[in-house]
Amino acid sequence: MRKLVVRLGGRTYPVFIQPYGLDNLADLMKRMGLSRECVVISDRSVSTLYGNRIIKILKDSDFNVSIHSVQDGERSKSLKTVSTLYTYLLDNKLKRDGVIIAFGGGVVGDLAGFVASTYLRGVTLIQIPTTLLSQVDSSIGGKVGINHPKGKNLIGSFYQPKFVLIDPNLLLTLKEREIWSGLGEVVKYGMIMDRRFFAFMEKNLESIANLRDEDLVAKMIGVSCRIKASVVSKDEREGGYRRILNFGHTIGHALEAAGNFKYFRHGESVVYGMHWASWVSRDKGYLSEIEFKRIENLLKRFKLPELPDFLSADELYETVGLDKKQTSGGLNVVLLDRIGRVRIERQERLSYYIEGWLDYVRK
Amino acid sequence: MRKLVVRLGGRTYPVFIQPYGLDNLADLMKRMGLSRECVVISDRSVSTLYGNRIIKILKDSDFNVSIHSVQDGERSKSLKTVSTLYTYLLDNKLKRDGVIIAFGGGVVGDLAGFVASTYLRGVTLIQIPTTLLSQVDSSIGGKVGINHPKGKNLIGSFYQPKFVLIDPNLLLTLKEREIWSGLGEVVKYGMIMDRRFFAFMEKNLESIANLRDEDLVAKMIGVSCRIKASVVSKDEREGGYRRILNFGHTIGHALEAAGNFKYFRHGESVVYGMHWASWVSRDKGYLSEIEFKRIENLLKRFKLPELPDFLSADELYETVGLDKKQTSGGLNVVLLDRIGRVRIERQERLSYYIEGWLDYVRK
Repeated sequence: MRKLVVRLGGRTYPVFIQPYGLDNLADLMKRMGLSRECVVISDRSVSTLYGNRIIKILKDSDFNVSIHSVQDGERSKSLKTVSTLYTYLLDNKLKRDGVIIAFGGGVVGDLAGFVASTYLRGVTLIQIPTTLLSQVDSSIGGKVGINHPKGKNLIGSFYQPKFVLIDPNLLLTLKEREIWSGLGEVVKYGMIMDRRFFAFMEKNLESIANLRDEDLVAKMIGVSCRIKASVVSKDEREGGYRRILNFGHTIGHALEAAGNFKYFRHGESVVYGMHWASWVSRDKGYLSEIEFKRIENLLKRFKLPELPDFLSADELYETVGLDKKQTSGGLNVVLLDRIGRVRIERQERLSYYIEGWLDYVRK
Repeated sequence: MRKLVVRLGGRTYPVFIQPYGLDNLADLMKRMGLSRECVVISDRSVSTLYGNRIIKILKDSDFNVSIHSVQDGERSKSLKTVSTLYTYLLDNKLKRDGVIIAFGGGVVGDLAGFVASTYLRGVTLIQIPTTLLSQVDSSIGGKVGINHPKGKNLIGSFYQPKFVLIDPNLLLTLKEREIWSGLGEVVKYGMIMDRRFFAFMEKNLESIANLRDEDLVAKMIGVSCRIKASVVSKDEREGGYRRILNFGHTIGHALEAAGNFKYFRHGESVVYGMHWASWVSRDKGYLSEIEFKRIENLLKRFKLPELPDFLSADELYETVGLDKKQTSGGLNVVLLDRIGRVRIERQERLSYYIEGWLDYVRK
């Protein structure tokens, strides 16, 4: 079993990575001295596939457990679902020392994490991510939250889990599109932090995407989690350094919003967003032509929906302005000096760069 | 200006106590380097009395400020009000570095604090408490939250303000009943932590209640805040030690609930709750007869509603069982060894002590 540690003083926690690791859940919980009272929060798809299994694993070890599944998809990240979950937890008499297990993808992790952070002023949270995106990114770092009619993730907090359990075998039931979407964030880690990992992904992208080589997949998840954990350890609440993880997300979020969160998946829009940020970095003379082409070639190998025709530069620009990462001082954008090294810069000529890039990709 | 510090590592913050301190708000905010973008959250009563004044103070110093007032009372501590506030903040484009000023009593502090802790994953919070109870208790320590149809404060978190500004002159517009309710928590500090402060309250209770002596009032607030701050510094998230502050709250909360949160104010029910806990402490032989009588005599001087006739031991017992402070291990109750020293004990014969005490007070 691979084990990483997210170092955050009193909130330090381990991340376990192991094929068939789900079977060790009860043991891990006992070893950490957690209460036997727990509630699993999941979604319909995951609980159809794995609901009985997780319940059996816990019941066989004398845990008192029940499971509540929300509808699949972003729409469950609402105050309404949160309210339903509070009532469910109270009806099930989950106490202050009880445990909430977030068992699903990013939506479930964000939602169940937010509920855990606010139920009885915070109860113990375990993250068991089941999608690639959540295994390599959202389950680590404590960002939890829900959406508001005015935008994604506008409500939330930072709340760290007691541990994260990553079982790569859970990925085998995913659709190919889900895998490709998750790989967007994976190559991001190489681009912003680790040239060697970038080269590893250049070499193995397709073999990893088909999930056949268990070792390659475990290594890819392990390195991703290590990078994510190291960034989070240095800046838990996104005061500065952690913003490097937003590489590709400025335009990425705007693209997601422009497609009404239906056309693009998160990781897909980030692939376009990373291309935009690399293009700007080259235009400004930070990133060399050779490195830009290397990035472009890797991103072109992704299986992605096309950039839709209806998308206009004006719309993108406007949506970027609503991004919550904007402070009253202006909008900071993460750019690249080279593969593996970022610079964060306040951006003035945003509309110019959005228009220019759209022309470039559409030419 | 009196200044105390709540020591919590990276979340350390000052508490300023000063008559007419409200006039210094803009200066304090500037000195702390806070953003000029802020929203005041208040209630109807407070904003009728002081809304124009706080807005003028901030606008005169070039702050960009708006005020949103919720309905008075506990019913505003709801997910519905929270949702309205999120929309208000987004409509007003409050950014991540913006400031939320909680300007009101406990309800406003809890509600605005909860919103600040979850809006854009947490924005800067300033507490300006306007009632005695909030000045000596709830504004310090970071407990924020809202109610659920199933009980009070079941949803919330721990979120520390950037600073607390206490202006005792704001108390002058309060009704007498509000003052007496707040004094319940004040004598609690003496009982659990400080014999000399208990004696000070024995000597000055009525003169403090009529608010005529500015020095006595400032001293009473100062000592209360110092005690509260010292307890919170030792145990931010109520892992153990902080529970001593729950002295009087086991039965207190149950009494509040039994009266549907209308018959008793919080501080009033705590006075009865402290009498209960002292009575149990004497019954168990921890507290001497003499000290019990001293406590009883002080509590009898409080102006309080009578214990209602409809109240039954069974109902109280049942409500106590729903208290969120109960863990699956049983219910811990804070008792007294003597005035100024507590012991926390798991309670087994709760129904016996509730019945016995009701008989005693009704005899």
